[in-house]
Amino acid sequence: MTKQINTIKGMRDFSSSVMFRRNYIFSVIKTTFEKYGFFPIQTPAMESLETLSGKYGDEGDKLIFKVLNSGDFLSKIELDNNITSNTLSKQISQKALRYDLTVPLARYVVKNRNDIIFPFKRYQIQNVWRADRPQKGRFREFFQCDADIIGTKSLISEIELIQLYDEIFSCLSIPNINICINNRKVLIGMVEVMNACSLFNEIVIILDKIDKIGLEEVKKEISLLGVKAESIKILDKFLSIKKITELKELLCSSKIGIQGIEELEFIFKNLENLGLKTSKLKFDITLARGIDYYTGCILEVKQKNINIGSLGGGGRYDDLTALFGLNDVSGVGVSFGVDRIYIVMEELNLFPLDIDKTIKVLIINFGEDEQIYCLDVLQKLRNEGISSELYPSIAKMKKQMNYADKRGVEYVLIIGEDEMVNGKVGVKEMSTGKQREMELSEFINEIK
Amino acid sequence: MTKQINTIKGMRDFSSSVMFRRNYIFSVIKTTFEKYGFFPIQTPAMESLETLSGKYGDEGDKLIFKVLNSGDFLSKIELDNNITSNTLSKQISQKALRYDLTVPLARYVVKNRNDIIFPFKRYQIQNVWRADRPQKGRFREFFQCDADIIGTKSLISEIELIQLYDEIFSCLSIPNINICINNRKVLIGMVEVMNACSLFNEIVIILDKIDKIGLEEVKKEISLLGVKAESIKILDKFLSIKKITELKELLCSSKIGIQGIEELEFIFKNLENLGLKTSKLKFDITLARGIDYYTGCILEVKQKNINIGSLGGGGRYDDLTALFGLNDVSGVGVSFGVDRIYIVMEELNLFPLDIDKTIKVLIINFGEDEQIYCLDVLQKLRNEGISSELYPSIAKMKKQMNYADKRGVEYVLIIGEDEMVNGKVGVKEMSTGKQREMELSEFINEIK
Repeated sequence: MTKQINTIKGMRDFSSSVMFRRNYIFSVIKTTFEKYGFFPIQTPAMESLETLSGKYGDEGDKLIFKVLNSGDFLSKIELDNNITSNTLSKQISQKALRYDLTVPLARYVVKNRNDIIFPFKRYQIQNVWRADRPQKGRFREFFQCDADIIGTKSLISEIELIQLYDEIFSCLSIPNINICINNRKVLIGMVEVMNACSLFNEIVIILDKIDKIGLEEVKKEISLLGVKAESIKILDKFLSIKKITELKELLCSSKIGIQGIEELEFIFKNLENLGLKTSKLKFDITLARGIDYYTGCILEVKQKNINIGSLGGGGRYDDLTALFGLNDVSGVGVSFGVDRIYIVMEELNLFPLDIDKTIKVLIINFGEDEQIYCLDVLQKLRNEGISSELYPSIAKMKKQMNYADKRGVEYVLIIGEDEMVNGKVGVKEMSTGKQREMELSEFINEIK
Repeated sequence: MTKQINTIKGMRDFSSSVMFRRNYIFSVIKTTFEKYGFFPIQTPAMESLETLSGKYGDEGDKLIFKVLNSGDFLSKIELDNNITSNTLSKQISQKALRYDLTVPLARYVVKNRNDIIFPFKRYQIQNVWRADRPQKGRFREFFQCDADIIGTKSLISEIELIQLYDEIFSCLSIPNINICINNRKVLIGMVEVMNACSLFNEIVIILDKIDKIGLEEVKKEISLLGVKAESIKILDKFLSIKKITELKELLCSSKIGIQGIEELEFIFKNLENLGLKTSKLKFDITLARGIDYYTGCILEVKQKNINIGSLGGGGRYDDLTALFGLNDVSGVGVSFGVDRIYIVMEELNLFPLDIDKTIKVLIINFGEDEQIYCLDVLQKLRNEGISSELYPSIAKMKKQMNYADKRGVEYVLIIGEDEMVNGKVGVKEMSTGKQREMELSEFINEIK
C-alpha cells in the first residue's frame, strides 16, 4: 500500500454520512438566503494572480495557492542561482486559487456591471483554499457561504444581514449564538483620539488577535509600533468599554467616530424593535476584523460553548470594486463557515436523527433466472419513484442481508422460485423483522 | 478599468439565471442517482501529484494543473540554466488539481476500504480542471457527475448504469439520445486477430479519434505504427460491422473477444426485455474510449442533433484500485457532462419555462419612518416563509418598480403614510398590473 492514498494535509474526503450532514447545513442556508432575496452565482476556482494579489494583506498574500503555468514554463526565463522564490514565482505562475469569495465577487460585479440589477443581492457557496497551517476547525480547503448586497449604503442591509445570521443559526438549532458587532469608523475614531492615525492598519491587525493573545499582549505589541504611553492609556479606556453610549464621550472629537456610533445605534434600535429569534447582538469594541477592505460595520459570530473561533463574519466595504476600476459602489456581506458550524453541531449533537438517507427497498439476488425476473420488479419500483436496488451478484443470503442492514435499507424483497411462480413477493420489514407475502402492486401502494 | 476583471480563459462566471438552469440539471441527476441507490461523497480539489500522475496517459498528464509549493519553494534547490521545466516542476510542485473523479474515487476506496460497504455505490458531483485548449463545449474548469459501483463484476451493474443514462436524459426531455456501447475485450480480440497485440494502447488512442479524423485517417495512422497491410484489412472488416452477431465469426479464435461478445449480448438481451424509456442502445465497434483504465464494457452518450461531442461516458475498469495497492476490486461507472448537457438543452430550448426563481414580494421604501414600519412587515412575511425584500434605500418610485420588474418580483407592497395609519397594505400584482388595498394578514393568506 503506497502513501499516495492519503489526502493532502488540511484537505478532506467526505463520506456519504458526512455529506448528508453538510448538505443539511447548506440547504438551511440556501433556503434562507433565497427567502431574503439573495440569488446564487458562481465564479471560477482560479483567478489571475493579478486579481487576487494585494487584497488580503501581506499575511494573506502568502497563503494564496499559486498554479504553475502549463507547458514549458521555463522556456523564456533566464535562470541563475540567485533568483528568489518570489521573483521566480511571478514568472512561472500567473494563476491562483481563490482565497475567499469577496474579491471574486468584486471582480464579477465590475465585469458584469452592465447586466447586473443593483442593489445586487447575490449568494455564493463555493470552496476556497488557503495554504494555512491546519488545526482544529481550520482547513486548507473549506467552504464559504456568502451573502452580499452591492450598490447601496443603506443600513437596512446591515439589519437584514444580522437577521439572516439569527434566522439561520436559529433554524439549525444552535444555541448561545453571539453576533458581535463593531464599526471600523469607531476604530478609526479611536486611533484618531490616540493620535496614531498613520498606524491604523497595524493596530487593527494586532487588535484582531486579541482572542488569541489577550489584552495585555495587544497593548504591548501596539506600544512596540512606537505608540506613546498616553495613547496606550486611551486605548486601554476604549477597550474596557461595554456599551455604545460610553463611547460618545471618548469619541466626541472625532467626526468619523461619531458617525460610527450613529450607525451602530440605528442598527441596535431597529433590531431591538424587531427582536431576534435566538441570537444575541453584542457590541464588542475589540472586534477588528483583520481584512483590509472593511470600512463600516463589522460582524463576527461566536458560539459560547465550543471554542473554535468564529462561525461567520462580515461587514461593510465601501470601495472594494474600486480595486477593479469601478468607484462609488458600496457593499456589505456576511459569510458562514460551514466547516466550523458542522463541528459545533456535531459536538452539541444537533443534527436531526433522521438525517441519513436510506434506501427504501433491496431485492435479494437468488440466482441467474431470478435476477432477470427481479430486474423487471426493480424497474417497476423505480418507475414509482421508490429508491431501490437489486443486489448485483448471487451472494449468500447472510451477506446480502448484512449489506441491507449496513446501508439502512427499509424493506428487503425476497423473490425466489416460488414467488416467481405465484407472482407474489416476500417482504421483510428491516426495523421490525416482520415478514409477509403479498402482491407487488399491494406492496408499492403500501410504501408509497 | 484593468484587464484583471476577466476570468481565466476556459473558466466561467455563472450568473443566477445560468445557475438556476445548471441546478435544475444537477437536481434531476442527483434525484435519479439516489433513486438508484447511489450516495454522495466528495474528495479534495487537490491531490498529491503522485496520486494523479501516470493515470491518464501522456497526453492527460500534460493537461494536469500543478500547484506551486508554498513558501520559499526554491530554498533547497540547486538551479542552473540547463534545468528543464519538467525536472524543475517535480521539485517545486507536489500537488495538483483533480483531472477527473475516477482516480480520486480509486484513492478514496483504498484509503477508506475498512469503512466502506461493498458493493460501494457512490456518486460525486464536483468540478475538475484540465489545461486544455478551450473550444465550444470544452472548458478548463467543468463539472463532472459520476456514478460508480465498486466491488462487483456483475453485469447487472452495466444494465443499471445504462438505465440510469436513459432515465436521466428522459427526465431532462432530451430527445434522440444514443447510448453507444462497445467492449474493450472485443477490441483486445480484434487486435489479437490483427496480430498486433503489443500495439493495443496505441491503436485504441487512434481509434478514439475516429469521430474527428474519419475511418481512412484512422487506418493510415494505424499503418504508420507498423501494422501490416493484411492486418489493416482485418481492421477494416471489423470497423464496418454493425451488429454484434457479425462479430462472432471474426472473433471465433479469440477467447477474450468471445467473452466480450457474451457480455454485450447479456446486456442487450436484458435491456430489450426491460425496454428503455427514450434512448437507444447502439453497438458501436468504433467506440474505444482513450483512457487507459477501462477493461470491459465502455459507453458513450451522444445527442444526434447537436454536434458537441459526447454528453457522458464510462465503462468497466477491473483493476483501478490496484494503482493504489488494492487488488481484485472491479468497478464500473458513468459520467455526465453537465456543461455540454446545458448547451444541448439551451440549443433545443428544453429548459422549463418557470425555471427562473422569483421573489414573491418587494416592499417599496417611501422614507425613513416608513422603512422602520416596513421592516416589521417584512419580518412577518419572511416568518411565513415568503421570499421578500424591502428596497434598501429611499429611491424614486420608478427606480424601485424597475428593480421589481427586472428581478421578477410577483407582488409589490405599497405602504405609505395612509397605509401606516389605516393598517392596510397596497398590493400591486406585477403580472396583471392590478392594484388593491387589503389587510396584511389577508394578503399573506392569499399568497401562501
